[in-house]
Amino acid sequence: MNVKFAGLDIGGKNFTVIAGPCAVENEDQMLQASNAVKAAGAHVLRAGLYKLRTRPDAFQGLGRDGFPIVKLAKQKCGLPFLTEITSASQVEALADIADFIMVGTRNMYNYDLLKELGRARVPVVLKRGMSAKVEEWINAAEYIARGGNDKIILCERGIRTFETATRNTLDLAGALWVKQRSALPVIVDPSHGTGIPALIPGMAAATLAAGLDGVMVEVHPMPSAALSDGSQALTTEQFADMMEKLKRLGEVCNRPVHAPGGHL
Amino acid sequence: MNVKFAGLDIGGKNFTVIAGPCAVENEDQMLQASNAVKAAGAHVLRAGLYKLRTRPDAFQGLGRDGFPIVKLAKQKCGLPFLTEITSASQVEALADIADFIMVGTRNMYNYDLLKELGRARVPVVLKRGMSAKVEEWINAAEYIARGGNDKIILCERGIRTFETATRNTLDLAGALWVKQRSALPVIVDPSHGTGIPALIPGMAAATLAAGLDGVMVEVHPMPSAALSDGSQALTTEQFADMMEKLKRLGEVCNRPVHAPGGHL
Amino acid sequence: MNVKFAGLDIGGKNFTVIAGPCAVENEDQMLQASNAVKAAGAHVLRAGLYKLRTRPDAFQGLGRDGFPIVKLAKQKCGLPFLTEITSASQVEALADIADFIMVGTRNMYNYDLLKELGRARVPVVLKRGMSAKVEEWINAAEYIARGGNDKIILCERGIRTFETATRNTLDLAGALWVKQRSALPVIVDPSHGTGIPALIPGMAAATLAAGLDGVMVEVHPMPSAALSDGSQALTTEQFADMMEKLKRLGEVCNRPVHAPGGHL
Amino acid sequence: MNVKFAGLDIGGKNFTVIAGPCAVENEDQMLQASNAVKAAGAHVLRAGLYKLRTRPDAFQGLGRDGFPIVKLAKQKCGLPFLTEITSASQVEALADIADFIMVGTRNMYNYDLLKELGRARVPVVLKRGMSAKVEEWINAAEYIARGGNDKIILCERGIRTFETATRNTLDLAGALWVKQRSALPVIVDPSHGTGIPALIPGMAAATLAAGLDGVMVEVHPMPSAALSDGSQALTTEQFADMMEKLKRLGEVCNRPVHAPGGHL
Repeated sequence: MNVKFAGLDIGGKNFTVIAGPCAVENEDQMLQASNAVKAAGAHVLRAGLYKLRTRPDAFQGLGRDGFPIVKLAKQKCGLPFLTEITSASQVEALADIADFIMVGTRNMYNYDLLKELGRARVPVVLKRGMSAKVEEWINAAEYIARGGNDKIILCERGIRTFETATRNTLDLAGALWVKQRSALPVIVDPSHGTGIPALIPGMAAATLAAGLDGVMVEVHPMPSAALSDGSQALTTEQFADMMEKLKRLGEVCNRPVHAPGGHL
Repeated sequence: MNVKFAGLDIGGKNFTVIAGPCAVENEDQMLQASNAVKAAGAHVLRAGLYKLRTRPDAFQGLGRDGFPIVKLAKQKCGLPFLTEITSASQVEALADIADFIMVGTRNMYNYDLLKELGRARVPVVLKRGMSAKVEEWINAAEYIARGGNDKIILCERGIRTFETATRNTLDLAGALWVKQRSALPVIVDPSHGTGIPALIPGMAAATLAAGLDGVMVEVHPMPSAALSDGSQALTTEQFADMMEKLKRLGEVCNRPVHAPGGHL
Repeated sequence: MNVKFAGLDIGGKNFTVIAGPCAVENEDQMLQASNAVKAAGAHVLRAGLYKLRTRPDAFQGLGRDGFPIVKLAKQKCGLPFLTEITSASQVEALADIADFIMVGTRNMYNYDLLKELGRARVPVVLKRGMSAKVEEWINAAEYIARGGNDKIILCERGIRTFETATRNTLDLAGALWVKQRSALPVIVDPSHGTGIPALIPGMAAATLAAGLDGVMVEVHPMPSAALSDGSQALTTEQFADMMEKLKRLGEVCNRPVHAPGGHL
Repeated sequence: MNVKFAGLDIGGKNFTVIAGPCAVENEDQMLQASNAVKAAGAHVLRAGLYKLRTRPDAFQGLGRDGFPIVKLAKQKCGLPFLTEITSASQVEALADIADFIMVGTRNMYNYDLLKELGRARVPVVLKRGMSAKVEEWINAAEYIARGGNDKIILCERGIRTFETATRNTLDLAGALWVKQRSALPVIVDPSHGTGIPALIPGMAAATLAAGLDGVMVEVHPMPSAALSDGSQALTTEQFADMMEKLKRLGEVCNRPVHAPGGHL
């Protein structure tokens, strides 16, 4: 059950790359980031408008104030846009601006939100809960599907274990298990999965070689100045370098790293 | 910051016992359960109206249809009532019937719901997320407190680990850590925490001896016939037996297991 | 299958307290520690001669050089002595000086060592592996029992989980599960289990109230000067205070905190 | 610090494949397995002579009785041989027959054994403890290195987490972290890491693409008849198919899947 949308065929032959900053911060940052990921060959632009943060006093995203910035960035780079939803009340507003709505790890068990997204017309990227068993993850997708929305993409982003050297433990084998047992496309987020830029290109290559359907990575024009999660973002140069390697790998693995039609 | 409400003083000298079935099923079941837990000395009646279930086709609770049953049970036994909220849209309706609103483990990170409960007037029992660090749990409470509701009770219900002999790993030391570092009352749910009736009385006694503020346990008149989680419920006889032991233990620990005024 | 040895009846009616410093450091430290724990009512003196350390350049214990110090301390305080074995080659030498030989968490799967201890005549305290399932722990004890040594005491010392506020996650419910399913006495080590002195007395009381058979705690005359694990040791005053509370609790729970005959 | 031994250069440019049955069972099984893995292009033959099993009554390996079988298999297929050590007393005997000695996951913390292997002349493959942090794993290698043996290969074999769909959680990112921080070669065991044959080829490809140094996989001529761990073994046909894919992938990744000199 590939997800065909916005000129893409996620879960099909092509390997999909979603990239962009953790959060929309300002026009300059978004234009630099979106142009750079487009130039390097990404297929979807990502950026957060609403952020879920452990502490209520941390930066929670620009919200509505970020919409014009996103519209401009989309127009300039021509890529479809993915952003996270943090409340059922945002569905309608986000449907105006987002081509893909992401459910973050903290909301995988928020069945109320999942049911609401079952009524949306845009594809949903459902991240695995940080301690969700793979069976529960598949069942969460079922909450969306029952509402009539069959455009669902699963995203592995690392699980919580005793290991603290990496931010989470990226469970590539669990992701592959899910791909083999469900009909859904499965992509991987090595940025949250490892939290360490030096590990991201290797884990992205591993994702492609394992037979999974794509990656989502955080890219920031100046990671050290990012308002959130900067320490795990790739620079635009590191991202371009990673894309070159993925393209070469995709050729031998018969998973081309370019969009259908090749025009994106 | 004790929670004084409905004649109780949770987090004060007394040790609080919350008991009742996992879900409201029908009038007979609720009346039997509520009368039995009241007779044995429980201070608060618990029962689920809205259930969060891993699979969308599992029993999801009676919802509104259960309200008249709850009203009757409350009237007959005279105990305050606690139930779980599963959607921000339920706040108003539940405030009519519930004296305590519980946020389940799957919703600890649902900051949207927590903010909504910050505006409610009833106390909130906030369960720890199944993989939440104790720091994150305290921060989640802060999302409620910022809305103006300072009646917050934390409830440890076991965390997810590699051990599968018990349903979860009950983290009593983590609960005590939180009690020592926050001003909030901390209670423990050994029913979900262990999933094994034979372990529940021992863990309830351990909770009291450790210096924590109360327990919440599942009690069902006929566990084998329960519509959900029956295998972990105590029978009414087992519960009465447990209460006798807790009362004796409470005397020597100077944590009486009866409500303020002694009339409940 | 209680362990009757050195005038004790571990797993019987009495609740056993094992206490002492992490490591034998010098004569002064050992005499102060042993006299203090004896005076407060401990039943067994503990101290490490051979230490297992993550880094090969960390303090590895006094080894043979500590034997005269231990002999003197035993003679002065009159308590039986427990110490950890770290190599099968130590069995004979330790049998001369130790009344209980402890297998540490890193060696629970060291079946070679367990088989060797099956031929020893002294009781073995078998700590749970830091990520051992309770079934595996019981099976490890079987490796000792098959060799002919049926004097086995299990010791829960916390398991490894995602939580980092405490050093390990103390699994009291898992310990109780094992006690209910095996015929072996089960004790608890809240010092390693939590790593935080302020949590130790509460967890020791919880252990007694839960129905388990004893505790092992680290006590040091001057924790800040300890050569290993000082940050988790109780002072002798804190230990004496904890013992007073355990004695009162033991009375109501019918688990007296004094040795059989009352003369120890 | 590559490990050059037996004509191989592990950690160098080539990607190393170690394969064979979990345990030596009999002559027929070993000859079939060793010839098949040699024909498919494996560089090292693996098989267990001494097995560590959770239950003392499970099959513990042929021990000395298996030595003639191994000698015959080595002679016929011409591959170097790797086997697990389970006791320090086996070092000398194994040095006669094994080109690589493996320390299993249960013995990573067995510092006594590690020190003994520091005096051996053969390379040591050190598996990660099932709940070992990557820092501890590196420190364990240091116990071997201090003894004078610098031929050390690290092997990631999955860690223990809450997920039960796979046997363990294969931590590829953790393995890459260790490769980037230590000078040691790091290989991966997807057989124990996943426990599911359908996931093994994908995880082996991921290992190569991530930049790690090799894989160790279990191959059995008839998995359903294996005396241990049969359910996770590849058939000889599945292994040959996997090798073809690894060879193609190795070409584009500049990590050739053939031994130095190309004659093995």
